[in-house]
Amino acid sequence: MKFAKIPMATINRLSIYLRNLDELMINDVEVISSERLAKQCGVNPAQIRKDLAYFGEFGVRGVGYRVKDLYAQIQEILGLNRPWNMALFGVGNLGSALIRHANFLKHGYRFVAAFDLDPEKIDKTLPNGLLIQHVDRFEEVVKERNVEMGIIAVPPASAQSVANQLILAGINGILNFSPVQIQVPDCCRVENVDFSIKLDNLAYHISSTTT
Amino acid sequence: MKFAKIPMATINRLSIYLRNLDELMINDVEVISSERLAKQCGVNPAQIRKDLAYFGEFGVRGVGYRVKDLYAQIQEILGLNRPWNMALFGVGNLGSALIRHANFLKHGYRFVAAFDLDPEKIDKTLPNGLLIQHVDRFEEVVKERNVEMGIIAVPPASAQSVANQLILAGINGILNFSPVQIQVPDCCRVENVDFSIKLDNLAYHISSTTT
Repeated sequence: MKFAKIPMATINRLSIYLRNLDELMINDVEVISSERLAKQCGVNPAQIRKDLAYFGEFGVRGVGYRVKDLYAQIQEILGLNRPWNMALFGVGNLGSALIRHANFLKHGYRFVAAFDLDPEKIDKTLPNGLLIQHVDRFEEVVKERNVEMGIIAVPPASAQSVANQLILAGINGILNFSPVQIQVPDCCRVENVDFSIKLDNLAYHISSTTT
Repeated sequence: MKFAKIPMATINRLSIYLRNLDELMINDVEVISSERLAKQCGVNPAQIRKDLAYFGEFGVRGVGYRVKDLYAQIQEILGLNRPWNMALFGVGNLGSALIRHANFLKHGYRFVAAFDLDPEKIDKTLPNGLLIQHVDRFEEVVKERNVEMGIIAVPPASAQSVANQLILAGINGILNFSPVQIQVPDCCRVENVDFSIKLDNLAYHISSTTT
């Protein structure tokens, strides 16, 4: 689906709404007011209305949102009404943890391939049944399994070269767990996740305010 | 250490420099030019010099940076020249993965307590030897083990109440993995990590550019 330029912050919040609606569905809530939904998501009700207004009319005045409908609509907006195939690069501590983190699956993200360089790891099977393959087999496997996103969990020095391979293979979405800033062309989007950096921010905050 | 107002982006990059310097040390690199360090970190050399200039004079003209010295200096700036004690809230899939993710330990972050509500989990021992405790014991344990940061990996509906408890206990640094925006007073800093949101961003990017 294409829409006018939507602020990234709105897309982020839609994600948050989606996860909270998911939780409401689990708890069999059928209808929710924008006030209650806002409270649960930690935003104000006007924000929810404004975010949704980019995409059309949602909710029923005086009633609120039908949880299932809004969930389905946001899913469609974000492109989450279908599964996404991901390949993992780097099956170290973090990589293995990610594979185990079942939440991914819940939201339609699934690992369809896992790559490493370490001969000790190649041809081993992960708990989810995936075979760890040598990164040399990447191009072939990407096509075969229709990989759409690359998850980079390799050491920093290798992150850019993995990204280069992904881009050459036409993959336009990268989630980078490696503590390095990856350079990519405009067609490609990189999202960085580095909780060590976030912890460092906290350490800096606490150190600089308490001493 | 207190410094003038430092941009958050600078603090983030210091973190990245630190991790790359760490890798250089592992590879026995003793001296590195700002050009090479910049390349490895995915920034430009002027950026590194500018970021470091907030904190003093670093490096030797015409030579570059002594890896160990710069590492130690950035460690001190960020407050990482000592270990940090963290408590985990929510020992689910993600929580357990975090406990297993040894990288934390490497950078001086250590879990000293783990809490959950699930009677099935309470009193079980985690692979790192930590006992899972009922969240009711939180206040007592926080003091006993000198917890300085709280890691929230509970379901979204419980995240704010866990945060409230942390704040009441005087904890000013929270790393939140729950897909909800937590409200905290100014003294407290929250860093959010939600890779589902990041994946959703990628899905949205790919969907909206390729269809």
